[in-house]
Amino acid sequence: MNERIKTLQENMNRENIDYVMVQSRPNVFYLTGFDADPHERLLGVVIPKEGNPTLICPQMEVNQISKLFNPEWIIGYTDSEDPWSKLFSALQPDAQVVALEENIPWTRFTSWQSNCPGSRYVTCDHLLNAMRLTKSDEEISIMKEAAALADQGIQAGVDALKEGVTEMEVIAQIEYTLKKEGVREMSFSTMALFGEKCGDPHGNPGMRTLQKGDAVLFDLGVEWKGYTSDMTRTVFFGEVSEEQRTIYQTVLNAHLKAVALCKPGTLIQSLDQTARKEIEEAGYGNYFPHRIGHGIGIQVHEFPSLNDQNQNALTTGMTFTIEPGIYIPDISGVRIEDEILITEDGCVSLNSFPKDLQVIWNS
Amino acid sequence: MNERIKTLQENMNRENIDYVMVQSRPNVFYLTGFDADPHERLLGVVIPKEGNPTLICPQMEVNQISKLFNPEWIIGYTDSEDPWSKLFSALQPDAQVVALEENIPWTRFTSWQSNCPGSRYVTCDHLLNAMRLTKSDEEISIMKEAAALADQGIQAGVDALKEGVTEMEVIAQIEYTLKKEGVREMSFSTMALFGEKCGDPHGNPGMRTLQKGDAVLFDLGVEWKGYTSDMTRTVFFGEVSEEQRTIYQTVLNAHLKAVALCKPGTLIQSLDQTARKEIEEAGYGNYFPHRIGHGIGIQVHEFPSLNDQNQNALTTGMTFTIEPGIYIPDISGVRIEDEILITEDGCVSLNSFPKDLQVIWNS
Repeated sequence: MNERIKTLQENMNRENIDYVMVQSRPNVFYLTGFDADPHERLLGVVIPKEGNPTLICPQMEVNQISKLFNPEWIIGYTDSEDPWSKLFSALQPDAQVVALEENIPWTRFTSWQSNCPGSRYVTCDHLLNAMRLTKSDEEISIMKEAAALADQGIQAGVDALKEGVTEMEVIAQIEYTLKKEGVREMSFSTMALFGEKCGDPHGNPGMRTLQKGDAVLFDLGVEWKGYTSDMTRTVFFGEVSEEQRTIYQTVLNAHLKAVALCKPGTLIQSLDQTARKEIEEAGYGNYFPHRIGHGIGIQVHEFPSLNDQNQNALTTGMTFTIEPGIYIPDISGVRIEDEILITEDGCVSLNSFPKDLQVIWNS
Repeated sequence: MNERIKTLQENMNRENIDYVMVQSRPNVFYLTGFDADPHERLLGVVIPKEGNPTLICPQMEVNQISKLFNPEWIIGYTDSEDPWSKLFSALQPDAQVVALEENIPWTRFTSWQSNCPGSRYVTCDHLLNAMRLTKSDEEISIMKEAAALADQGIQAGVDALKEGVTEMEVIAQIEYTLKKEGVREMSFSTMALFGEKCGDPHGNPGMRTLQKGDAVLFDLGVEWKGYTSDMTRTVFFGEVSEEQRTIYQTVLNAHLKAVALCKPGTLIQSLDQTARKEIEEAGYGNYFPHRIGHGIGIQVHEFPSLNDQNQNALTTGMTFTIEPGIYIPDISGVRIEDEILITEDGCVSLNSFPKDLQVIWNS
C-alpha cells in the first residue's frame, strides 16, 4: 500500500482516530498522486485506522485515477447518483472519532453527521501538515525544477526592462517565456512593480511605465508537476539613489542573516526575529509589516508559518521562503526572497538568480 | 443602502430568514463591490432581515473596503483577535433561521452553531443565484469588454499558427497579447489543442506541434473588472478533410439552432435538446458528452446549468454560454462557443470572431 497512507494510519492510531477523510485538492494529490480540480463534485479519500482506503470520485475520473491508485479501492458515481450513499454503504457506520479537514464545506460535514450521527468530529489538518512538512528526494527534485523556472522568469523580466515599458508588458513577457517552456500555470498572479508602487507589499501591477531611477520588484513562481515555486528580486533601472542603496543593503543583510541560521534545530521564530532586528537597527522597523516567510510545496503558501511566535525547530527536508522587505509607502520598496531547503547540516537555496544590487540599463 | 442588500432583505423576509451570511469571494464582491482573496482569513457579510449589514474583515482591508461600504458597518480584526467573538458581540444572538452558503467551511459553520445554538441553519445559495442571474446594464457593459478581449485572444491564437509551433507556444502568444492590454488573469487555464488532441473535451495542451490538416481548438477567457469571459473557436490548419468539414458544419448548425431559440420564455432544456438532436441526426450523438452551456458572470461557471433537464425559462438579462461539440477520441474534435445575452425581444452574442469554417495558412 501507498507509504504515505501507512504513515497516516500509524499517526491515526496514536491519536485514536477511526477515520480520516481528505477532500481538498492538495491533500488528495499528496495521498493519491491524482491532481485535478473536480469543481463542485466530491473527490475524497477515506482512510480507516486499519485496512484499505476508499476513494470516492466522479465516474469520468475513474480511469485516470486507476492508473495511480488500486482500482479495488475506488468508488465512482455518476451525476445522477448520490456519492454519500455510495460511500457510506461501503464503510462501517460505527466510527467513534472522525477527522475532517477544516475547510470541508458545511454541507459535506452534515452528510457525515447524518450518516454517522454518533461520531465525534475533529480536524485532521495537523496530521497532513506534519507529513507534508518533510519533502522526499523526489519532491525536492521537482521543486528544484520549479525554482529554476522561477529564476528563468526573473531573468526574462529583467531582459524586458526598458524606458517606458509598462508593468503589464513586463509580466506578459515573463509569462510568455515560461509558458513557451511548457509551464501551464503560474503559482500566483505574477507581480512586477515599478518605482513608488514597490512601496505596497500587496501592489497591483498595471499600466505604470518604467522611468530611470525606478526600483523594479518581481515576485513570481510556477506550478510544475504538482508543486510550486515562489521568489522575489528587486533591481534598479538606470540609476540608484543613496537611500535606495541603503534600503537594499539592509534587506539583503536581513535576508542573509536569516538564511545563515537555517539548519536543523534552529527555532523558526529566530529567523523572523533576526531579520527584523537587522531592519529595526537600520531605522526601518516600521516598514517591514509581514512575517519572514512561509512553507512551500504542493501549495505556494503551506504549513508552517515562519513568524516571530513559532517556537518549533527547523528539521531536515523542510522547504520555505525567506523574504524580508522594506516598503516606504508611495516612495519605493525592496523585497528579496529565496526558497530554502533544510539539509542535514545546513541549508541550500533553490534559487540562483544573483542577490547583489543590480542596476539595469537595456536600451 | 446598497440596492442589492435591500433586494436580498426583501427575499429573506418572504422566506422568514433572520440572517444571511456570505463569505465566498464572488458573493462578497456582488454585495459589497470588494474583490480580493482573503485566503484563510474570514471576510464575510452578515445581513439581518431588517436594518444594516455587518461586514467582518481583516484589519488591513478596512481602508480599502471603507471606500466601497459604509465604514460604520465594518468590523476589522487583527491576526491576534478572534473574528467570531467580535462579530457575535455586535449581532443579536436570538436568530431563529440563519442561511449560510453551501461551501462555508465546516469550522465556520460550527462557530455559528456554538454562538447561536438555538438557530436553524439553511442554505442561502438560491437567494444569491436568483439575484446574480439577471445582469444590470453596468454588468453587461463590463462583460462586453471581457468578451471583446476573448475575441482578441482568439485572433492572437490564429495569428500564432504556423507549421511546427507547439500548443504551449500558441498559448504563450495569446496570453502575452492580452496581458500587454492589462489583463491580469485569464478566467481559466487557456486551451489550445491540435489535431487528435481536440478529440478530448478536457484536453491538456503541451508540446504537440502543429501539422497541415490539424484542427485547432481554442477555449479561453479573461478576468476583467470582477467579471469573466469564455469562448471557443475551432479552425483548421492548411487543409480540411471532408469528414472534418461535416463535423464542423454539424456543430455550427447545432450552435446556431440553439442560439436561434434564445429569447425570454424559452425553456432552458430546449436549447440542449435542439442542439443534441441536430448532432444525433448527423450520426454523432455519442460524441457530444456534455451539456450545451452554463451561466457566466462574476464566475466563469455560475448558475444556471443549461442541461436537458432544466425546465426554467430564459429571462431578460441572463448571460450564458452555448457550446456544442463533437469529439472523436484520438482523431479530432470541434467546439463552437459564444456568450449569449438575453434581451427583451431575443438575444445578442457578446462575441464577434467569425464562426464560418476557416482554413488558416500562415507561413
